Amino acid sequence: MSKPRSDILKTVENAERDRDYAITHWTDEFTFLYPITDQPCFASIEIEYHPAKHCIEMMSLKNYLQTFRDEAFYYEAVANKVLDDLADTIKPRRMKVTASFTVRGGISSTVKASVGDV
Amino acid sequence: MSKPRSDILKTVENAERDRDYAITHWTDEFTFLYPITDQPCFASIEIEYHPAKHCIEMMSLKNYLQTFRDEAFYYEAVANKVLDDLADTIKPRRMKVTASFTVRGGISSTVKASVGDV
Amino acid sequence: MSKPRSDILKTVENAERDRDYAITHWTDEFTFLYPITDQPCFASIEIEYHPAKHCIEMMSLKNYLQTFRDEAFYYEAVANKVLDDLADTIKPRRMKVTASFTVRGGISSTVKASVGDV
Amino acid sequence: MSKPRSDILKTVENAERDRDYAITHWTDEFTFLYPITDQPCFASIEIEYHPAKHCIEMMSLKNYLQTFRDEAFYYEAVANKVLDDLADTIKPRRMKVTASFTVRGGISSTVKASVGDV
Amino acid sequence: MSKPRSDILKTVENAERDRDYAITHWTDEFTFLYPITDQPCFASIEIEYHPAKHCIEMMSLKNYLQTFRDEAFYYEAVANKVLDDLADTIKPRRMKVTASFTVRGGISSTVKASVGDV
Amino acid sequence: MSKPRSDILKTVENAERDRDYAITHWTDEFTFLYPITDQPCFASIEIEYHPAKHCIEMMSLKNYLQTFRDEAFYYEAVANKVLDDLADTIKPRRMKVTASFTVRGGISSTVKASVGDV
Amino acid sequence: MSKPRSDILKTVENAERDRDYAITHWTDEFTFLYPITDQPCFASIEIEYHPAKHCIEMMSLKNYLQTFRDEAFYYEAVANKVLDDLADTIKPRRMKVTASFTVRGGISSTVKASVGDV
Amino acid sequence: MSKPRSDILKTVENAERDRDYAITHWTDEFTFLYPITDQPCFASIEIEYHPAKHCIEMMSLKNYLQTFRDEAFYYEAVANKVLDDLADTIKPRRMKVTASFTVRGGISSTVKASVGDV
Amino acid sequence: MSKPRSDILKTVENAERDRDYAITHWTDEFTFLYPITDQPCFASIEIEYHPAKHCIEMMSLKNYLQTFRDEAFYYEAVANKVLDDLADTIKPRRMKVTASFTVRGGISSTVKASVGDV
Amino acid sequence: MSKPRSDILKTVENAERDRDYAITHWTDEFTFLYPITDQPCFASIEIEYHPAKHCIEMMSLKNYLQTFRDEAFYYEAVANKVLDDLADTIKPRRMKVTASFTVRGGISSTVKASVGDV
Repeated sequence: MSKPRSDILKTVENAERDRDYAITHWTDEFTFLYPITDQPCFASIEIEYHPAKHCIEMMSLKNYLQTFRDEAFYYEAVANKVLDDLADTIKPRRMKVTASFTVRGGISSTVKASVGDV
Repeated sequence: MSKPRSDILKTVENAERDRDYAITHWTDEFTFLYPITDQPCFASIEIEYHPAKHCIEMMSLKNYLQTFRDEAFYYEAVANKVLDDLADTIKPRRMKVTASFTVRGGISSTVKASVGDV
Repeated sequence: MSKPRSDILKTVENAERDRDYAITHWTDEFTFLYPITDQPCFASIEIEYHPAKHCIEMMSLKNYLQTFRDEAFYYEAVANKVLDDLADTIKPRRMKVTASFTVRGGISSTVKASVGDV
Repeated sequence: MSKPRSDILKTVENAERDRDYAITHWTDEFTFLYPITDQPCFASIEIEYHPAKHCIEMMSLKNYLQTFRDEAFYYEAVANKVLDDLADTIKPRRMKVTASFTVRGGISSTVKASVGDV
Repeated sequence: MSKPRSDILKTVENAERDRDYAITHWTDEFTFLYPITDQPCFASIEIEYHPAKHCIEMMSLKNYLQTFRDEAFYYEAVANKVLDDLADTIKPRRMKVTASFTVRGGISSTVKASVGDV
Repeated sequence: MSKPRSDILKTVENAERDRDYAITHWTDEFTFLYPITDQPCFASIEIEYHPAKHCIEMMSLKNYLQTFRDEAFYYEAVANKVLDDLADTIKPRRMKVTASFTVRGGISSTVKASVGDV
Repeated sequence: MSKPRSDILKTVENAERDRDYAITHWTDEFTFLYPITDQPCFASIEIEYHPAKHCIEMMSLKNYLQTFRDEAFYYEAVANKVLDDLADTIKPRRMKVTASFTVRGGISSTVKASVGDV
Repeated sequence: MSKPRSDILKTVENAERDRDYAITHWTDEFTFLYPITDQPCFASIEIEYHPAKHCIEMMSLKNYLQTFRDEAFYYEAVANKVLDDLADTIKPRRMKVTASFTVRGGISSTVKASVGDV
Repeated sequence: MSKPRSDILKTVENAERDRDYAITHWTDEFTFLYPITDQPCFASIEIEYHPAKHCIEMMSLKNYLQTFRDEAFYYEAVANKVLDDLADTIKPRRMKVTASFTVRGGISSTVKASVGDV
Repeated sequence: MSKPRSDILKTVENAERDRDYAITHWTDEFTFLYPITDQPCFASIEIEYHPAKHCIEMMSLKNYLQTFRDEAFYYEAVANKVLDDLADTIKPRRMKVTASFTVRGGISSTVKASVGDV
């Protein structure tokens, strides 16, 4: 299983780096595979962060999220992976990732993880 | 009256045990019986927890919740039972269980219980 | 596999039998088993009918719907079974049964069947 | 069991009697008793009609609907009773009464009845 | 009681008079007085019409609806008055006016009237 | 004016008395009379409490709330009365009662009262 | 321009003056005029307060709010005026007034003001 | 006033031209100017059509709708203009355009126009 | 580009083949690729049909819809392809497929196609 | 690229400058261009502030927001620009600007920035 390429992520300068403000990106066009069964999974992903020196370049975020399409992840892993990749790339003041997975076996699930004080 | 078998519950290793993050499972496919009358009851169950060393294995959670189907419980008991069984199994940092019961006698009811600081 | 006992159903006289009017009953507290896997299924059931000589007695309707709890049915079968049992019992001018099943494999399903001109 | 006093209902002249138009009144403040158990029931009532020579005077409609408060009725009976009382009083071109009853035994119910071509 | 001044209404040429198409205006900023009590009433008004030679000029429609503010009307009268004033002014292919009045005595009311085949 | 009989209320042992957890009951089937006018009033009632030694027995709660049906109360009084009766009966760790009254004179009203630290 | 008559407001004794509890009144039947243009404005008004010795008498609140109908106010002024008039009249523990104004020039507006610790 | 360039619109072959089926495009990112005042207007546009030999190429539809941004139109004109431009370009079996304009002067407006039997 | 394998689709006998009734399947877990750009597309799919001799086997429907994941289709093509594959497989009395595609370029799109009289 | 003219913004005296209260303006009629591509962007803008000596004059706020129509901005820049322009003009106690941008590439975005303690 190859790893999603976090090197796809690009950054832009944060022009307001003295101000502590929040950026949120949300999409429900996120899909990946479940380990062992290789069945497709679907989730919405919300990324809320307070930028430090850099912001996430949006087109690269879209491309990055698409790299999960053919990769296999457990629910806990996928949310933490997105958080780690994004936080490593832009070193934000703080960041929270919320992944909400569609119903499986009658149960819907959500994983929320964060770095910094969110 | 036999007890729901909490030994059905399985765990998976928490790969991010240094991070304090949240997992939520929600289902409205939960049914059990009311004591004395043996009439069916229906509820939604939300389980939110912050894992320590282990997470709940999802397929076993589904199987566990199904064991209530033919058992009799009072509302307060069912919510506390789910909390105790799950918390005993995975020893989370903290966990909250919310059970929302459908209308009986014109009244809907909710029971929320937690362990740890939620 | 024993059959749900339609003989549980009771009727009441329709006091307005010269008037063509509609009665609707709806519940989302309906559960049964899936054949082979014996996994629990959940659905909402809507019964709309125009009574002729008799109406369905409501307490008996509740009891009747509960008889499915431990029986195994395919989706198409359960909706047609409810329609047949009820229509056979009260001989309505017309009747429509709509069963909406919860998500399985990412897919939700609905079955609508009717007798008479609905 | 005394009957709701339909003689409470008052009428006003329909100033537009050459025009076929519709008037709808809706309330969810409607309560009555269930026969035998004398338990309170609650419903919303919608009355849609096309007036002929007379309209329903609104204050008297409120007073009329309140007369059900201490009376006992089956669901089918209460909807047909309201329709009959109102239609007898104002002789509309057509009238439809929809009564939606709150959940009892996990089942909600609606009764729709009409006179004329609705 | 002075009459709302329908001569406030202005028209614009319908540039597409060979086409049978629909225009809808909706506002919930409509208030008038109740006869006898002079208490304020509030309603939403929807005007749907198919223009013939003329359309309603929108600014004049706003001004026209404001003329009801200090006038007293029964519910049936206000809906029919708006319909008559507007239809007399622009002679539409057809027009429907729906007035939805806020709750009084626990009852909300709607009056729908139309000219032409709607 | 006779007082609602709080002695109708029954209690059940709280099996989890070492745990601080929350129980909520909600109904919109609550009606009483307005003083002087004796006009019916309608409200929803939410009762949220953290039990100490006892819980409210649900069937008795339904019976208790029905005792208001023919009694006259001001809005402030009815919410405080329910709170006092229930809190006196079960001596909870804390309890909050929220009564939301339907529109009268174009105004809807809510009264929230609590005992303990809610 | 005459001032809304706050002397219309009447009070009732607060029977529970030892308890710190909350009363909320809400209406969307509130209209006034805009200065200079004299155009009608529409808003919803929410009044939440914790009574001390007195509560607002509800019928007088309705009458008081109607006095704004022919008066001209800026948005900021109308919310603060309602707050001042009501707070001066009943001297509450604390009070918050929220006025939500309908869209003008594509922009909707809200003004929230309070006295005491809300 | 220059005309929106309908020659921007591109078509694609309808691969299913023997089948009568429906395509709907919807956007709320539509803006233009109001004549005389040159104030910006905002609307949602829904285009539903049954293709004959050609479909609308989606990228060109986006570009076409953007050409209205700096043009001035009355409400009736803008809906009919979109319908005429699109229908002239692809000669559909039938087409309906619905334009819903945001609130101006407290009034929201919708214009629906169609060609063929919709 | 390989074609989605419609031979994955399995059928089950329709036990009620004398009755004209409706089955609906709905999922928003549907993804495919856009031609040329190979960018992922997302849609919900609703399949409503009246079975003749056979019904669609649900597990095979899930597998069939997943075969689109790595295939490229235009919007019009994907809806018609699903309709053709399913209708060819079970020969229903009638069938309607509705595909609702997520926003691209600010525009959301829907394609509805059917065979038989829906 | 000319800069939006913040000198269009006008102020009005805050008549209640001793009171710390909140004013919110919200619009979804906000459009600007994306740098490089010059494609139109659409957003809703919420401005919440606690005035000190001055409030924003509403007509000038509308005019100010319209100046963005033909200017190019990145998402982060547009929210911070609105905040800076408004805060510089009225020197509020505190102010928060929330800009919610429509879906691009399947992703919706929000930027929240504030000055003072919000």
